[in-house]
Amino acid sequence: MSQTITILNGPNLNLLGQREPDIYGITTLADIKDMCKSAAEKQGLNINFVQTNHEGELVDLVQQSADSVGLIINAGAYTHTSVALHDALKSLTIPIIEVHLSNIYAREPFRHHSYISPLARGIICGLGAQGYVLAIEAITAGR
Amino acid sequence: MSQTITILNGPNLNLLGQREPDIYGITTLADIKDMCKSAAEKQGLNINFVQTNHEGELVDLVQQSADSVGLIINAGAYTHTSVALHDALKSLTIPIIEVHLSNIYAREPFRHHSYISPLARGIICGLGAQGYVLAIEAITAGR
Amino acid sequence: MSQTITILNGPNLNLLGQREPDIYGITTLADIKDMCKSAAEKQGLNINFVQTNHEGELVDLVQQSADSVGLIINAGAYTHTSVALHDALKSLTIPIIEVHLSNIYAREPFRHHSYISPLARGIICGLGAQGYVLAIEAITAGR
Amino acid sequence: MSQTITILNGPNLNLLGQREPDIYGITTLADIKDMCKSAAEKQGLNINFVQTNHEGELVDLVQQSADSVGLIINAGAYTHTSVALHDALKSLTIPIIEVHLSNIYAREPFRHHSYISPLARGIICGLGAQGYVLAIEAITAGR
Amino acid sequence: MSQTITILNGPNLNLLGQREPDIYGITTLADIKDMCKSAAEKQGLNINFVQTNHEGELVDLVQQSADSVGLIINAGAYTHTSVALHDALKSLTIPIIEVHLSNIYAREPFRHHSYISPLARGIICGLGAQGYVLAIEAITAGR
Amino acid sequence: MSQTITILNGPNLNLLGQREPDIYGITTLADIKDMCKSAAEKQGLNINFVQTNHEGELVDLVQQSADSVGLIINAGAYTHTSVALHDALKSLTIPIIEVHLSNIYAREPFRHHSYISPLARGIICGLGAQGYVLAIEAITAGR
Amino acid sequence: MSQTITILNGPNLNLLGQREPDIYGITTLADIKDMCKSAAEKQGLNINFVQTNHEGELVDLVQQSADSVGLIINAGAYTHTSVALHDALKSLTIPIIEVHLSNIYAREPFRHHSYISPLARGIICGLGAQGYVLAIEAITAGR
Amino acid sequence: MSQTITILNGPNLNLLGQREPDIYGITTLADIKDMCKSAAEKQGLNINFVQTNHEGELVDLVQQSADSVGLIINAGAYTHTSVALHDALKSLTIPIIEVHLSNIYAREPFRHHSYISPLARGIICGLGAQGYVLAIEAITAGR
Amino acid sequence: MSQTITILNGPNLNLLGQREPDIYGITTLADIKDMCKSAAEKQGLNINFVQTNHEGELVDLVQQSADSVGLIINAGAYTHTSVALHDALKSLTIPIIEVHLSNIYAREPFRHHSYISPLARGIICGLGAQGYVLAIEAITAGR
Amino acid sequence: MSQTITILNGPNLNLLGQREPDIYGITTLADIKDMCKSAAEKQGLNINFVQTNHEGELVDLVQQSADSVGLIINAGAYTHTSVALHDALKSLTIPIIEVHLSNIYAREPFRHHSYISPLARGIICGLGAQGYVLAIEAITAGR
Amino acid sequence: MSQTITILNGPNLNLLGQREPDIYGITTLADIKDMCKSAAEKQGLNINFVQTNHEGELVDLVQQSADSVGLIINAGAYTHTSVALHDALKSLTIPIIEVHLSNIYAREPFRHHSYISPLARGIICGLGAQGYVLAIEAITAGR
Amino acid sequence: MSQTITILNGPNLNLLGQREPDIYGITTLADIKDMCKSAAEKQGLNINFVQTNHEGELVDLVQQSADSVGLIINAGAYTHTSVALHDALKSLTIPIIEVHLSNIYAREPFRHHSYISPLARGIICGLGAQGYVLAIEAITAGR
Repeated sequence: MSQTITILNGPNLNLLGQREPDIYGITTLADIKDMCKSAAEKQGLNINFVQTNHEGELVDLVQQSADSVGLIINAGAYTHTSVALHDALKSLTIPIIEVHLSNIYAREPFRHHSYISPLARGIICGLGAQGYVLAIEAITAGR
Repeated sequence: MSQTITILNGPNLNLLGQREPDIYGITTLADIKDMCKSAAEKQGLNINFVQTNHEGELVDLVQQSADSVGLIINAGAYTHTSVALHDALKSLTIPIIEVHLSNIYAREPFRHHSYISPLARGIICGLGAQGYVLAIEAITAGR
Repeated sequence: MSQTITILNGPNLNLLGQREPDIYGITTLADIKDMCKSAAEKQGLNINFVQTNHEGELVDLVQQSADSVGLIINAGAYTHTSVALHDALKSLTIPIIEVHLSNIYAREPFRHHSYISPLARGIICGLGAQGYVLAIEAITAGR
Repeated sequence: MSQTITILNGPNLNLLGQREPDIYGITTLADIKDMCKSAAEKQGLNINFVQTNHEGELVDLVQQSADSVGLIINAGAYTHTSVALHDALKSLTIPIIEVHLSNIYAREPFRHHSYISPLARGIICGLGAQGYVLAIEAITAGR
Repeated sequence: MSQTITILNGPNLNLLGQREPDIYGITTLADIKDMCKSAAEKQGLNINFVQTNHEGELVDLVQQSADSVGLIINAGAYTHTSVALHDALKSLTIPIIEVHLSNIYAREPFRHHSYISPLARGIICGLGAQGYVLAIEAITAGR
Repeated sequence: MSQTITILNGPNLNLLGQREPDIYGITTLADIKDMCKSAAEKQGLNINFVQTNHEGELVDLVQQSADSVGLIINAGAYTHTSVALHDALKSLTIPIIEVHLSNIYAREPFRHHSYISPLARGIICGLGAQGYVLAIEAITAGR
Repeated sequence: MSQTITILNGPNLNLLGQREPDIYGITTLADIKDMCKSAAEKQGLNINFVQTNHEGELVDLVQQSADSVGLIINAGAYTHTSVALHDALKSLTIPIIEVHLSNIYAREPFRHHSYISPLARGIICGLGAQGYVLAIEAITAGR
Repeated sequence: MSQTITILNGPNLNLLGQREPDIYGITTLADIKDMCKSAAEKQGLNINFVQTNHEGELVDLVQQSADSVGLIINAGAYTHTSVALHDALKSLTIPIIEVHLSNIYAREPFRHHSYISPLARGIICGLGAQGYVLAIEAITAGR
Repeated sequence: MSQTITILNGPNLNLLGQREPDIYGITTLADIKDMCKSAAEKQGLNINFVQTNHEGELVDLVQQSADSVGLIINAGAYTHTSVALHDALKSLTIPIIEVHLSNIYAREPFRHHSYISPLARGIICGLGAQGYVLAIEAITAGR
Repeated sequence: MSQTITILNGPNLNLLGQREPDIYGITTLADIKDMCKSAAEKQGLNINFVQTNHEGELVDLVQQSADSVGLIINAGAYTHTSVALHDALKSLTIPIIEVHLSNIYAREPFRHHSYISPLARGIICGLGAQGYVLAIEAITAGR
Repeated sequence: MSQTITILNGPNLNLLGQREPDIYGITTLADIKDMCKSAAEKQGLNINFVQTNHEGELVDLVQQSADSVGLIINAGAYTHTSVALHDALKSLTIPIIEVHLSNIYAREPFRHHSYISPLARGIICGLGAQGYVLAIEAITAGR
Repeated sequence: MSQTITILNGPNLNLLGQREPDIYGITTLADIKDMCKSAAEKQGLNINFVQTNHEGELVDLVQQSADSVGLIINAGAYTHTSVALHDALKSLTIPIIEVHLSNIYAREPFRHHSYISPLARGIICGLGAQGYVLAIEAITAGR
């Protein structure tokens, strides 16, 4: 288990690339998983890639990632509202990278505050699927 | 000139690695420049790497970067106060990546707002010198 | 499925009419379901009427309603706190009517903001169970 | 007089359907009056349908509606600024339904607060002319 | 005209004592006028006692009171919203006494700010009809 | 004791008329006491007129006034800061009139909020020493 | 009618130059009207110059100006409080110039926000009567 | 069931004593359960002691506690964000005691507001595991 | 002296049980003192139980409690306003328990902030006189 | 030197008309200079027309304009952030006209506050290059 | 008395140097008094050096200092909360120097506002006991 | 260089004593330099006394002062706006004294916040040129 990077995806990310492809592009979450798997394998690592719409499950999953090499988290909307997630992340000692597909600072004001950022080693946002790959680099470079 | 990535560094970044190395580390801005040069050359690109403590010079430099392949900007303290920089960046059509060495969201509240973020394609923060290298990857991947 | 109106009910609405009937009245959620069913059938439509106390399930259910004729949603307390629900609703293209049994603007200030309203075609509140029936009229009139 | 529903319309609603029909539609206030008259007559009721651009006149009209069966009010811009209207409505004992043609919660922030809502039995907004008809149903159903 | 005290009453004060006497008491605005007339006559003064629901008329009336001995104003709801009234009062050089029947500081927060108070010589509130009589004393004592 | 009106004066009111008479006038607190005594005697009442610079003593004095006919209080600066005074006043059942010599709403913003006002029957401010006399009238008229 | 510039003046502007000339100057609103007439005639245009203290009349007048060459509006106090005026102006397609005699940004904070500015082509303030003349130039230059 | 005290524990409390014992101590949630069981049995009562990371389950559990002798709730992070929990607690008529292991008022500002406190009979915080035992005393003393 | 628990009571607590017993109950401060004495004696401790309406005396008393076993403080209204008390408490090294008879979080907003809480080991509120007894348990359990 | 009008232009105004002419128009800063020169010459005046991206240089230039006939300043972004500019302007006794090409009140909220406005005689905004010419008229008319 | 400098010290300053000397240093208030005495005597002046924990006594003492050469005041916590002290200081015409031992602007936000500063000639903070000596120099230099 | 005190002066301080001497006095910055030189020489120290209107130069100068005995800084307007200056000061280990000629807390609210204060050992304001001399004493006393 210590050879794994946990990659958690929050609410509505399951819809990625499935609706309105002309607007949001055609990259699906499965595509991102493949990109991550490939990037991790280059570093000799496995990935545990999960998506859920439930805040409580994200908390469970964060707790279960304690022995991973690192945690990459795109918590979607819970980024902005979940103190529970904040507390779960606080209990970890592994490096945490917060990722967002879009540039949240160019969107509505309620997306400008993150309960995750103060606990993350680094934040990467606005770079789409590539952000996940860069996050894997950031974790493996820091080892 | 179109084969160049402009990399701008704001106030006090010239002190990097020169004072209190036990606290801030020993990586200097010159070291970061070398890392960027090397990463850019792998992509067949030059870099224009500059540091200044003057807001007006940053504005001048942003205006002069209009024909670069992309702009990487760590505006330091001016990130949080400079509408002039915001306006200069607004006039660009090239991709902009905002970089911060430290995680600004884990610091004082007055560092949580950025006049640059709404105009950037992506933001990378908290990942130290590596953040610059990832930013170069982000720009070149997007070409 | 395209002949269905989805009607979602959020937390604590399952208690309706079951406790303190002298205060909250004796209309139960089952009664409201019957009223909705009857109103929809007059228009030749089925209803999918669900209640849950879980934010994540509401997100799941909203995502699954994409092919309905319309969505009527009384998200209860999640109205005021759920960005996740907001994002799920944003992915829909069908008409959304937000319903509240009570007049939320005559209650505590934390009930005056809704993450649902900006995405709804219309809002009906304060009219009790009848609000659901009017919402069905609004959806069917708009076809 | 007790067989009448009073329907009050505030500033600029007289322009409805007369300018920029491609944007605001072609339904005029006269059309809405006809729809209301027809809906009320089905319930054996008359309507008193008035429009004014003057806050003081709206106050006068609210005071004069005390013996109506109910009051439907779309106070337009005065919704957001008129404490005088609030006080006039407070003196009534008949049911009040607040109506807005557009979804005010999807517009500018200064339209999100209503001095009328806390005094209304119910609020219907975003449903266009149909909102008036539903409001008549709401009043007559509540008798 | 210089022997006159102008007494202005704002929106909804015409309803005083006419509705819900068990709640608001049975004193009418006509009763208050009589009390004022009697109090003024003891000082050898006439009164000009007016009520209106219209902000613009209040502005007109304030302008017309410039040659009175003093102005007593209970502007009702316009107290809290009318900059126009503020400006009209600012043009006067006669003493102004602001009166409120109820204690506005024990009511909703939006009644705690007055655009009239900064321009008044004195404020009397919460003392019902007697407040008007005390205001007449205040003006005549100050001569 | 039941034939007494308690009149309490807060911090710095002892300086009244003693310094800078060209600015603040020459009326002293002793003069005001005389005016109050005379006004009360006309109504067959005694007065208990006290001044203190100590918040705690004001609280003691308010508690001791429980059997007076009424309480007139000019709490000076403690008006704006003392929750302790608020709580003491809350325990009283006799009428309370809040008095201020100057118009506090025409002064600095920190003088616009009063912890006393919500508990007072009435407020009289800006009318100088005469305000105390009017307050006595208000209490005796209300008996 | 299409050869006319409408010039609207809000509350209390009728007092201009009539009271306290040593403070506010001796230019009357009639003088300003003459200056405007003369400036417009040089451009071959008529003016429709009106003053009112009533918000509702300003709304009426704005609506009636739809066919003018342009609208110059000094709404006085309603500038800061009238959403109704905002909505009326929004319905116009002719150029709107907002004028203020005094520099409203050097006065009380409640005069710093204007409901008119976001809808105006331009704003001229602080330049006294000359501001009206410059506004006429601005409209005619823009034709 | 009426002989039971329900004791609910929110997100991340399952980690108690399991990680970083040098910081958070070695008391586990199981230890707290034992302490509670023992304290309740002295009063002849059973306990229903549950922990969950899911907001929706907390809502379910609160609803199911309606027939308990009392409810002790340490909602962890949901204390500060859950209106749904607030509404569920509002439906109860049994005594509610809010408990927090740490002193939430000595922590980050976002932990200073509780949606539970206004509905609780009492609040005990900062006293660690002993707080639960005191809460049981508080409930049983109040019977 | 080291065998003493200091118990300090702030303004207006001397009124407890003496006025309006039907509202506030009949428990007096003397009754609470007796309960505390009895509870402390079970632990072999004396109590120093004092009440004062004066902020300065509370500061004196806190300073004098430095050698007690612990400090229990119900500072009443000074809880919300006294930085002086905060500073006095900061100089102590003994455990501090903050107690409130009523649930201050269910009362007015100005009672929701406490200058004492950040310095207390624990807070107990809403549990009436029993809160003092639980506080003694908390201090003695912690020894 | 006393026959000169100083015209200062702040950051990014050098880009005017040079980029994206289809969006921002083709008028360059040089064109505006020509228009100003011509307008000033009609009044027998020279102009000193400067642009800089540096806040400190703007301060220098404002100080050097003390003997001009008047100062026209379009400080661009520094309008909203520069207290230094405010202080420099405060030292002048010549008339100051603030100019903005666009209507800053129709743009982002951070452009609605100006540190220059309270010190300006007049403000002209939204009228493009013509605003400069009107400002020259305003200064020369005021001589 | 006119040969005296009054030096007032507020709450908790009596503890100086007596507790936790390793943290707060070993300088006592008596030491500071000696330093002040010595510095004043060099200028041929006496000092009146007082400490109190009571706000009301500080008000008394400020009033009594009216004939001193100057007032040096370190009001401790009352600096931030006492409008009463503000008003007492306002009545003085002698120079006032505000002193703080620590740098209050580097401490909690509630210590950043001072009710004394707007009335002081000068403020000296963060310089420990030396601040008092510098304040004496400031007063005597200004004579 | 280690025998030098650096004294930095920000924007507009070069104007000191040169304009409006009847208002601001006749002391020039050169006079202050002489006073500082003289005071430093008494302690056997040189001074490096500089003024600039440019924020960037202040940053440069602060960086260059790292080996001085101490830094005295009157940053003028940049005090309130410059995070860049804050960061430069943060890199120093020498004592910093912040000086202001006027009492900034008695001026506009935007002058009440200082980005320098949290990093200074001490602050001296309102004491004019003497403040610089006292600051030199403070630095030399602390050696």
